[in-house]
Amino acid sequence: MINARVTVTLKNGVLDPQGKAIEGALGSLGFEGVGQVRQGKVFEVSLETTDSAEATVQLTAMCEKLLANTVIENYAVEIL
Amino acid sequence: MINARVTVTLKNGVLDPQGKAIEGALGSLGFEGVGQVRQGKVFEVSLETTDSAEATVQLTAMCEKLLANTVIENYAVEIL
Repeated sequence: MINARVTVTLKNGVLDPQGKAIEGALGSLGFEGVGQVRQGKVFEVSLETTDSAEATVQLTAMCEKLLANTVIENYAVEIL
Repeated sequence: MINARVTVTLKNGVLDPQGKAIEGALGSLGFEGVGQVRQGKVFEVSLETTDSAEATVQLTAMCEKLLANTVIENYAVEIL
């Protein structure tokens, strides 16, 4: 059993209205010195395989096919 | 300037319908051996301070007040 974490973030240059809203909200709450905020997604996936190389291959395929929109998003696969 | 990553995930035992939907979709796409999938959020925050201890304190306060719903979510702060 392998646990992995997949992080999907917007590519640089892609507008992130949700991040902008959070920046504004943090300012309203009195947090000073906040620069950019960008929001992404994280997936915690458990796989039945015990081979971490195979798991990485499988998770990369999952990102390409479902978890990330590779036109506007980057992804990172991390075996825990 | 400090860059940090805040990861917000659902606590164990909290139902995650989005994660369940992803599990189902991965199965439909032919991925076998997928156990549990849980979805969370990740925030990339840049702060103007250069003191990483102060940044951690500030980010923890942001999580408590805005970024995480501490009733159902855990958060982790990571200085990059």
